Amino acid sequence: MAKTNAGRFFEDYQMGQVLTHAVPRTVSGGERALYHALYPARHALYSSDAFAQACGLEASPIDDMAAFHVVFGKTVPDVSLNAVANLGYAEGRWLKPVHAGDTLRSTSEVIGLKQNSNGKTGVVYVRTRGMNQRDEVVLDYVRWVMVRKRDADAAAPETVLPDLAKSVAAEDLVIPEGLDFTGYDFDLAGEPHRWADYEVGEQIDHVDGVTIEEAEHMMATRLWQNTAKVHFDATFRPDGQRLIYGGHVISMARALSFNGLANAQMVVALNAGAHANPCFSGDTIKAWSEVLDKADTPAPGVGALRLRLVATKGGLPFTLRGEDGKYDPNVLLDLDYWALVPQ
Amino acid sequence: MAKTNAGRFFEDYQMGQVLTHAVPRTVSGGERALYHALYPARHALYSSDAFAQACGLEASPIDDMAAFHVVFGKTVPDVSLNAVANLGYAEGRWLKPVHAGDTLRSTSEVIGLKQNSNGKTGVVYVRTRGMNQRDEVVLDYVRWVMVRKRDADAAAPETVLPDLAKSVAAEDLVIPEGLDFTGYDFDLAGEPHRWADYEVGEQIDHVDGVTIEEAEHMMATRLWQNTAKVHFDATFRPDGQRLIYGGHVISMARALSFNGLANAQMVVALNAGAHANPCFSGDTIKAWSEVLDKADTPAPGVGALRLRLVATKGGLPFTLRGEDGKYDPNVLLDLDYWALVPQ
Amino acid sequence: MAKTNAGRFFEDYQMGQVLTHAVPRTVSGGERALYHALYPARHALYSSDAFAQACGLEASPIDDMAAFHVVFGKTVPDVSLNAVANLGYAEGRWLKPVHAGDTLRSTSEVIGLKQNSNGKTGVVYVRTRGMNQRDEVVLDYVRWVMVRKRDADAAAPETVLPDLAKSVAAEDLVIPEGLDFTGYDFDLAGEPHRWADYEVGEQIDHVDGVTIEEAEHMMATRLWQNTAKVHFDATFRPDGQRLIYGGHVISMARALSFNGLANAQMVVALNAGAHANPCFSGDTIKAWSEVLDKADTPAPGVGALRLRLVATKGGLPFTLRGEDGKYDPNVLLDLDYWALVPQ
Repeated sequence: MAKTNAGRFFEDYQMGQVLTHAVPRTVSGGERALYHALYPARHALYSSDAFAQACGLEASPIDDMAAFHVVFGKTVPDVSLNAVANLGYAEGRWLKPVHAGDTLRSTSEVIGLKQNSNGKTGVVYVRTRGMNQRDEVVLDYVRWVMVRKRDADAAAPETVLPDLAKSVAAEDLVIPEGLDFTGYDFDLAGEPHRWADYEVGEQIDHVDGVTIEEAEHMMATRLWQNTAKVHFDATFRPDGQRLIYGGHVISMARALSFNGLANAQMVVALNAGAHANPCFSGDTIKAWSEVLDKADTPAPGVGALRLRLVATKGGLPFTLRGEDGKYDPNVLLDLDYWALVPQ
Repeated sequence: MAKTNAGRFFEDYQMGQVLTHAVPRTVSGGERALYHALYPARHALYSSDAFAQACGLEASPIDDMAAFHVVFGKTVPDVSLNAVANLGYAEGRWLKPVHAGDTLRSTSEVIGLKQNSNGKTGVVYVRTRGMNQRDEVVLDYVRWVMVRKRDADAAAPETVLPDLAKSVAAEDLVIPEGLDFTGYDFDLAGEPHRWADYEVGEQIDHVDGVTIEEAEHMMATRLWQNTAKVHFDATFRPDGQRLIYGGHVISMARALSFNGLANAQMVVALNAGAHANPCFSGDTIKAWSEVLDKADTPAPGVGALRLRLVATKGGLPFTLRGEDGKYDPNVLLDLDYWALVPQ
Repeated sequence: MAKTNAGRFFEDYQMGQVLTHAVPRTVSGGERALYHALYPARHALYSSDAFAQACGLEASPIDDMAAFHVVFGKTVPDVSLNAVANLGYAEGRWLKPVHAGDTLRSTSEVIGLKQNSNGKTGVVYVRTRGMNQRDEVVLDYVRWVMVRKRDADAAAPETVLPDLAKSVAAEDLVIPEGLDFTGYDFDLAGEPHRWADYEVGEQIDHVDGVTIEEAEHMMATRLWQNTAKVHFDATFRPDGQRLIYGGHVISMARALSFNGLANAQMVVALNAGAHANPCFSGDTIKAWSEVLDKADTPAPGVGALRLRLVATKGGLPFTLRGEDGKYDPNVLLDLDYWALVPQ
């Protein structure tokens, strides 16, 4: 009996199957401190208990992206160990803040399957849910990946493509219980810009850059218990490079976006996301944003901004795609999310 | 009066001497998070409070190897600052889980002395005990090191060689109070293999590899307050390389062994250990294990596996020694330990 | 409306102006653990709750230098984003220990201004205060920096130079409430040297060295939410080097000084400090100290030592300046502080 996990292949997935991912994880002030050491994260609500309490929360939550990485990391051994590519995200919503002391686990339900015409690979769509120790869903998102078949001769499953929203509708955003920005302290938050100061179509160059080191991306990726060999083993790829976990780029870009979006405090929805090009140690990550949409919310003083967050490794800001419609080779990440902003 | 510590030399040790090691250490969720950032550690009982509680413990303990490193680190200034080689371990037992909030300190008793025939060095055997803030012994092990003499003309002490067990007997294993694996959740733990599924003589290739970085091994070694210059100062060795603390290799190999031994949850005894070859930054560590023995325990649903854990830097799995009986040059670590496994 | 912070220029400062720095920060056991991972810190009072309690404190505080870095880090976007040089420190006092769970914020008051004769830059003096969540001042210090003018034609302000003490007077040192060294455990602290064992003029070579890595200084600097680009972006300077935050050198040197000053437990005043030369990844930091002064204190068993702490990157210990009065090119840091020591 082979004891090691070879991962699932395309033919191992069936519609409706629910995968219980292993290794639940209790987070603490240690995860928070490491997040701040690994990324230049400065959003005040995630830095200060006093600031979070003044906004109606019990304490400063663990960064929303850290919660995402923990939930995502658990899915890797079951979903993407034999993945050729991480193709997309949709319908992601943060439903409950995660606090120090919470224990997270996750499950994924197969909601779509499509074998590729080459017969060697297929696309698997899963809806992943992250739960806390009270069985409350804290995060819910759809991801689809291209996975190898073990046996090219295995029969193709019936093609089922899920009907996915292009973006989470503003009325479906879940505002954390008690959130109230009417007494928001702009001085302590770091910037004066309110929800009304942002216009749809506006672009912001976040200016700062961070050069990436091997030790940092590996520590981050391990912290989320993401086990994909390609991030850790320099002998795994022919070129001897360790591919950086896409989530490391997400967190770096989100943290850099503080400079211009310091008040885009809470991330509440992930509408879409593409890891446009691979990132390697030595790359200097910069970021820019574009305001895609605005919406009011029922919570006092709280507005929502739909934002495009683009991470680059050099090149000019605001360049996204070439004339051929393909991503510019300097673009690492194109992320579409909703954030909560004081009005 | 010289203020700095030059360390003890061979003639400074006497039989029965008890050394009180300095700098007690309170551990917290921070140490736990860093452990997970530095190593791909995924054993569920050390990752999730909820999982640990379902196994009868009060909360998820600090990793057993982290507890070992903290206790060991304190001994370095008194035992191995002038050591030429760390020769072996024996009779190690973890007696109490260490939890966030505990304060650890350690003492060592000299239990053996033997001057080498060259007259320049000698071997010192110590029994080290780690205690918590309630003066409970949490860990107890024997280590022997070769230490330089300050003065080659100093008289040789009477040779005393301690009588050490080749391995901790199964009946001497201490099972943490309350441990109960009868309701063990194999899905959350990550693998289905029970105690009965492992056979003596079985070998497991843990497959995954991690390439080591300077920043990581130095952060780990400092975290355990291990002060040996050779780990931190690139100007110390003629070759400009920083020697990696052997404990870093132990933790890396143990974490990698999750893949195939996910249910070997708690480490309860260290029977023997050899740091077969030095490890340097840039090495890619892989690991394999061999089942050496099996034993039942009085705790409900709990069995014990005696395992050989071998860390390598390249080379083929399951290669340990050459025809000359010497360790293969790719072998970094040969560790013999007992772990607790659900039945 | 530009959304990103371009930082203040010399003409943006006015005498008496009080700047409220953004992004308050709650510290936890995570910050403590990271401090111990990033620096070889071993002062027992900052390592063990039990040791700190035996000295009359409620628990082991966050390292004094970590508290300094958090308070300092907040000032960077408002004070030194356009700084050409960090010129000096004076009149620094630690007024309250910082514990896990505390939330720190800081303000700076402009207390001096002097345009340079070149008309392109000026010197700004600020008194920075760090406060906890109870609005208690935990740290207070003066810093002066040379800042660029936005517009060389802007009118020069009236020159005001603050009257700064050369050193904090012994009678102005603030001893943490309850501190009592009468039952001090020298064995657990790691060295036997009492206050009476140190003589004014005595010099101590701390012996150990640490070679600096990019990942480590960036993690440290981010942890303190210091945002200066020059520390993170390898494309920012023409030579492609990342300048290491001066505070990283301070903490490294202070930690190295354990070897010879293990009982210089608490830092209570910063008299002066100069970052004599830049530090880069690959430098091996060593440290030496000189006893500048001694004083009694009203607290039981507690004496004070005024110490010069010098960090070097190679070169001989005890070399500070050349015949021309300039710092030796191997000197990185020249720090003058008061520490509390058992009598």
